Amino acid sequence: MLLNCVAYRDGGRLADLAVEQISDHLALPACFVWVALRDPSPQELDAMRREFDLPALAVEDAMRGHARPKVDEYDDTLFVVMQLIEFIGGEVNLGEVAVFAGPNYVLSVRTGSKQHFLGVRERCEREPHLLKLGAGFVLYALMDAVVSRYLPILELLESELEGIEDRIFVRGTTQLNIEQLYALKRKVMVLKHAVSPLLQFAGRLYGGRVPAVCAQTQDYFRDISDQLARIDDAVDAIRETIATAVTVNLSMATVEASEVTKRLAAWAGIFAVATSLAGIWGMNFEFMPELKLPWGYPAALGLIGSACALMWWRFRRLRWL
Amino acid sequence: MLLNCVAYRDGGRLADLAVEQISDHLALPACFVWVALRDPSPQELDAMRREFDLPALAVEDAMRGHARPKVDEYDDTLFVVMQLIEFIGGEVNLGEVAVFAGPNYVLSVRTGSKQHFLGVRERCEREPHLLKLGAGFVLYALMDAVVSRYLPILELLESELEGIEDRIFVRGTTQLNIEQLYALKRKVMVLKHAVSPLLQFAGRLYGGRVPAVCAQTQDYFRDISDQLARIDDAVDAIRETIATAVTVNLSMATVEASEVTKRLAAWAGIFAVATSLAGIWGMNFEFMPELKLPWGYPAALGLIGSACALMWWRFRRLRWL
Amino acid sequence: MLLNCVAYRDGGRLADLAVEQISDHLALPACFVWVALRDPSPQELDAMRREFDLPALAVEDAMRGHARPKVDEYDDTLFVVMQLIEFIGGEVNLGEVAVFAGPNYVLSVRTGSKQHFLGVRERCEREPHLLKLGAGFVLYALMDAVVSRYLPILELLESELEGIEDRIFVRGTTQLNIEQLYALKRKVMVLKHAVSPLLQFAGRLYGGRVPAVCAQTQDYFRDISDQLARIDDAVDAIRETIATAVTVNLSMATVEASEVTKRLAAWAGIFAVATSLAGIWGMNFEFMPELKLPWGYPAALGLIGSACALMWWRFRRLRWL
Amino acid sequence: MLLNCVAYRDGGRLADLAVEQISDHLALPACFVWVALRDPSPQELDAMRREFDLPALAVEDAMRGHARPKVDEYDDTLFVVMQLIEFIGGEVNLGEVAVFAGPNYVLSVRTGSKQHFLGVRERCEREPHLLKLGAGFVLYALMDAVVSRYLPILELLESELEGIEDRIFVRGTTQLNIEQLYALKRKVMVLKHAVSPLLQFAGRLYGGRVPAVCAQTQDYFRDISDQLARIDDAVDAIRETIATAVTVNLSMATVEASEVTKRLAAWAGIFAVATSLAGIWGMNFEFMPELKLPWGYPAALGLIGSACALMWWRFRRLRWL
Amino acid sequence: MLLNCVAYRDGGRLADLAVEQISDHLALPACFVWVALRDPSPQELDAMRREFDLPALAVEDAMRGHARPKVDEYDDTLFVVMQLIEFIGGEVNLGEVAVFAGPNYVLSVRTGSKQHFLGVRERCEREPHLLKLGAGFVLYALMDAVVSRYLPILELLESELEGIEDRIFVRGTTQLNIEQLYALKRKVMVLKHAVSPLLQFAGRLYGGRVPAVCAQTQDYFRDISDQLARIDDAVDAIRETIATAVTVNLSMATVEASEVTKRLAAWAGIFAVATSLAGIWGMNFEFMPELKLPWGYPAALGLIGSACALMWWRFRRLRWL
Repeated sequence: MLLNCVAYRDGGRLADLAVEQISDHLALPACFVWVALRDPSPQELDAMRREFDLPALAVEDAMRGHARPKVDEYDDTLFVVMQLIEFIGGEVNLGEVAVFAGPNYVLSVRTGSKQHFLGVRERCEREPHLLKLGAGFVLYALMDAVVSRYLPILELLESELEGIEDRIFVRGTTQLNIEQLYALKRKVMVLKHAVSPLLQFAGRLYGGRVPAVCAQTQDYFRDISDQLARIDDAVDAIRETIATAVTVNLSMATVEASEVTKRLAAWAGIFAVATSLAGIWGMNFEFMPELKLPWGYPAALGLIGSACALMWWRFRRLRWL
Repeated sequence: MLLNCVAYRDGGRLADLAVEQISDHLALPACFVWVALRDPSPQELDAMRREFDLPALAVEDAMRGHARPKVDEYDDTLFVVMQLIEFIGGEVNLGEVAVFAGPNYVLSVRTGSKQHFLGVRERCEREPHLLKLGAGFVLYALMDAVVSRYLPILELLESELEGIEDRIFVRGTTQLNIEQLYALKRKVMVLKHAVSPLLQFAGRLYGGRVPAVCAQTQDYFRDISDQLARIDDAVDAIRETIATAVTVNLSMATVEASEVTKRLAAWAGIFAVATSLAGIWGMNFEFMPELKLPWGYPAALGLIGSACALMWWRFRRLRWL
Repeated sequence: MLLNCVAYRDGGRLADLAVEQISDHLALPACFVWVALRDPSPQELDAMRREFDLPALAVEDAMRGHARPKVDEYDDTLFVVMQLIEFIGGEVNLGEVAVFAGPNYVLSVRTGSKQHFLGVRERCEREPHLLKLGAGFVLYALMDAVVSRYLPILELLESELEGIEDRIFVRGTTQLNIEQLYALKRKVMVLKHAVSPLLQFAGRLYGGRVPAVCAQTQDYFRDISDQLARIDDAVDAIRETIATAVTVNLSMATVEASEVTKRLAAWAGIFAVATSLAGIWGMNFEFMPELKLPWGYPAALGLIGSACALMWWRFRRLRWL
Repeated sequence: MLLNCVAYRDGGRLADLAVEQISDHLALPACFVWVALRDPSPQELDAMRREFDLPALAVEDAMRGHARPKVDEYDDTLFVVMQLIEFIGGEVNLGEVAVFAGPNYVLSVRTGSKQHFLGVRERCEREPHLLKLGAGFVLYALMDAVVSRYLPILELLESELEGIEDRIFVRGTTQLNIEQLYALKRKVMVLKHAVSPLLQFAGRLYGGRVPAVCAQTQDYFRDISDQLARIDDAVDAIRETIATAVTVNLSMATVEASEVTKRLAAWAGIFAVATSLAGIWGMNFEFMPELKLPWGYPAALGLIGSACALMWWRFRRLRWL
Repeated sequence: MLLNCVAYRDGGRLADLAVEQISDHLALPACFVWVALRDPSPQELDAMRREFDLPALAVEDAMRGHARPKVDEYDDTLFVVMQLIEFIGGEVNLGEVAVFAGPNYVLSVRTGSKQHFLGVRERCEREPHLLKLGAGFVLYALMDAVVSRYLPILELLESELEGIEDRIFVRGTTQLNIEQLYALKRKVMVLKHAVSPLLQFAGRLYGGRVPAVCAQTQDYFRDISDQLARIDDAVDAIRETIATAVTVNLSMATVEASEVTKRLAAWAGIFAVATSLAGIWGMNFEFMPELKLPWGYPAALGLIGSACALMWWRFRRLRWL
């Protein structure tokens, strides 16, 4: 589905184009065309391929979807693939934005996600002095928009982790914690796989040799790279913390098991004393003088009770009870 | 066993050749020879070596089999080894495809696997404008076919992992899970060893200095490399998830053990109370007035029953029962 | 808030400037301007941007805050971001210093921290022969001050770790240890994230190609880098030790659990013997000759006592009790 | 001990030499000398040093032994150290082969191992066209022989691992498995330390800048490198599998412990029921009407038996018994 | 404290110098000065700085001490810091040697350690042809002496590890093992931090571009580097083995806990049978015919005894007892 197809000149909007006008406008001097597609049909993509003369392999990639984030260079065209992540009620929805950035055009193709980028176009049109920089700046603006959307996801994951940490040493939460840590780990890996390859490729868009499209906007791409590096660091920190938390949780499970055994041992001991003593006075020997005494029974009860109380008190002091 | 031996010119089929005609056709201008062998005898391979003037060491490698995936360069000949993986009922079958790609020929040698590559030849013959690119394109088509066959294997492993994850927190599945995680880990390592070295070598077939054979088809090899990188990432993600799952499973085993101990402790306590009380009234003291009371027995039974019920209710509330 | 705004010439103080005088003094030959801001308002930063002609993206970064430590090069201006760490009663407070270092000026912007850098200015003014080196030396002095403040934090973390290690093999401290190890781990990661990226970037300020600002003070920046490397190494050592300590703690929890079970087993055995024997003599068979013996009861008591004592002694020898 | 000392010309055997003739033959054009020593005395090595004019540091290294595998370049002489591994009844025997390869000589020094290399000389003499390549080919042949001997060791380790894997989920083998995994790990590390540094150094013998000795036999050294890479990969795979197996084994130990506790709990419960009931009918209340009934005793026995049977059946269904 | 201050010419001892003569002798052609200090006062170091014209930052570093091992290059002066390790009764003593090596002088500064380097000077003076190489050779000799002293430490750690390994599968040593493994780990990390950075820096003293001081003694520094690499490898091997041993120890703790539970279960079962049977015959039913039988009691005792014996025998066969 075609979302926008606009020609710009000197940073200002020239005209909304029909698809078949694109190639004509590309031929105009100082003219810049910016097209946005959403979940395009093969026919639409093919029309674009012809109008923009896009590299066939890249178009195939955009069509196929589910690619790894990457920045591929085809002669003077950059092909950038980024992932869009949505967590909807525990489920992960992975969308994709593929951007073709040539000398005087940008084509963005969004698939499988409801996140739109209208704001990017508006922002660019409000800053004609930057839009004048052409494809490089638009590519930056799109990448910046995608990367900015990783930040709330990162914050969500960090706050989930904090939630787990708040109760990791609370008794009886072992299984809940381990389940949530495992679920969190999976979400973190999704973000990791969106960010890490992109960070790696973004490093090629500034410093050293740089694709022609990005030559004038290197500082902007370094900014993107800095942000990606920060997210990547934070993601790695979460992963390391999860790994530690899982082991800590295992320790807590062992500690809890040990405490249960202590309680079991303490009560077993107390009742065993009572039962043993009662058993002894339940023996059938003929000559057991204490059995004849009038205060024998209360004394026995008292002895049994005292023995149990004494043990209870000792176990209490040992913190077994 | 010789599968095919065909000469092409300008992307079109020229003739089916006998083995001894190969060297003659290699001498023809603009002629391109594509031969496919399967589980060849040493004699067959040696004949090929003479016809194509193949490097001796590479031929030895292809004969020996069980090599690590690699891309070796011998002057103007590329020698590529890839692994073919089949999981047949829990068993792993590892086959191999070795490809010799020279300036105007491709020789593919498949060993130990039933996966054939007829489709590759058909696809190439349907696209003469690409087949015209010669050895580089055929090599790409073969590598692409092999790599594409890793994808369903990856999906299989991912769905096995999901199957385990679905019940990792279910009671009583600890041992089953750990057995299946271990088996899965082994399969994942097989895929890893097929993909990782190939990814490493594929990086030499585009960008920077490139073997002559691949010079015109660099974009295609980058595509291969992208796909391998994606599989490699996914394999690493599975490995990391398995490692986490193994620890999580250990935690679950500890939690389960702890729960069993809790139940043991609870029931032991309840019966210990009953036994102690019964033991006390079983003592043989002469003066135990309650023993004479007509309602003494029912009252004792009631007391024992109430004590047990009270304990049962408390353990229930503590979630020990 | 503007803290200082001073012009220097030949290493000596020339004059305190008002903000709007800055650009005039920058135009003077051999004049060097050093400005310090604290938690500046956007207006203040913007004024600075105009006076110093700072790169817009870097100013945005400084305004936004919470950046990853880094050293960015914009033409002849270096933009350095460092983190200031304070642990206040278990809470972490993360501040930031951003430094713009141009050919003849340094602007430092401190946000979110109470740590001031007056000492740095005093030290520089006391050493005019070094201050003469200009922006490079002031940048070094600021970085040195920040890095020096990481050292007491490192020592704090190391002494916390030693505190935990002192009692890691003491019975009954398992949970305390694991809680403190976890808390320590989090603090260590904060320091790690302040130090590691800075170490990486500091490597670009000496040896090989170096930003013009640092050209004459490379040895100083290598010194910074050495110190950062030492802290980074120490941090990694703490992390590795924590990881080992967590596992060791788990072992200790298991050992403790095992010891509790041993005690439980020992006492259960001792009482079970007493109860069994008492039960046997409590049986109601008519012909149990020992029951008739006058010394039967004391003998029985003696036997029960001896059996228990024997078992106690054996368990003692086995170190189960 | 001098094993062989032979001069070759044009790939053919010229003469067996006495030690003091070596330097004379080295001076002859197109003459190539190949000497093999075994556990040489310092005097023998020193004589060699003088005859071949070997670098003193390398000779010291060869004398000292126990070096890390390496390839050192001294002007036009290559000094290669490789390890020979023998597992004799659980014990590891580490020998060493040091090879000096100069422009027209090869000197191999074997120490601490009974593995001889006669086969290498025979093979080389059977292939004069290759032996003509001189020191580079002989060095390759020696390295190839050493590396080939790592293969059966690798297979031994892999089959030991499989042996452990076959019973890792069998009850009651936990300790045996962990002992064998630990022993296997140690053996694997021995192989790792022989292979890894050699692989690293072998990479310098082909591609890019290459020592003069190896210039004409680069393809052969790449072959060595490929084989080493394969062994190294396999060794890493074994290590990773061992790590997983150790954790899996720990899980199995926990699962087994949990099963023992379940059985304990089940039987404890069953007997506790019997004891409690018996205790109740053993109470001495006067009015316990069921005690007077003629069928009271069999009924009680039946009730106790049924209760126990019921519990046994329930535990059975829960798979606790 | 000044230990030695000697001028050499042509590898021979020229004269013992007073401190203030140093700069005069440095000006003499072909003269080489070698000074050794121990725990110097700031005044002594400052005198040296003036005589040798040492870089101020390096002198500060040497004064401050506790630096990370490193090799810093200041124009034509090399500044090398190495650590001296002593384990004295479980305590670690970390000393330091800082070496300044210029074109015609070497100054070594030892702090915090009793290990002296007299042997190095003696060895150098015995080999005038090597001493003639000047600062490069003396630096090598000092580094060689330091590195050689790491070897016995490594052997100590390896033999400690073997001591632990010898009893890691012995019952009842779990806690001892884990304590010693943890202590060993700490010592290993001390050695690691002395060796690893030095190895890294040593790689810059041979091959490629090399500081002028080391130009003629590159082979020697490669030798140092080889030795360091060997120690570093061995240290990493110990670390990996410790990590495995810690996990193995945890497994053994779990296995032991499981065995204790088995014993507990077995004895609990045996006594429970005895108690239950005795309880049954202790019931007060009127019609229990067996109670009247003259051989009833011995038969009951026999039955109880047999039941217990049977269970004992079964548990024995199950290896629970």
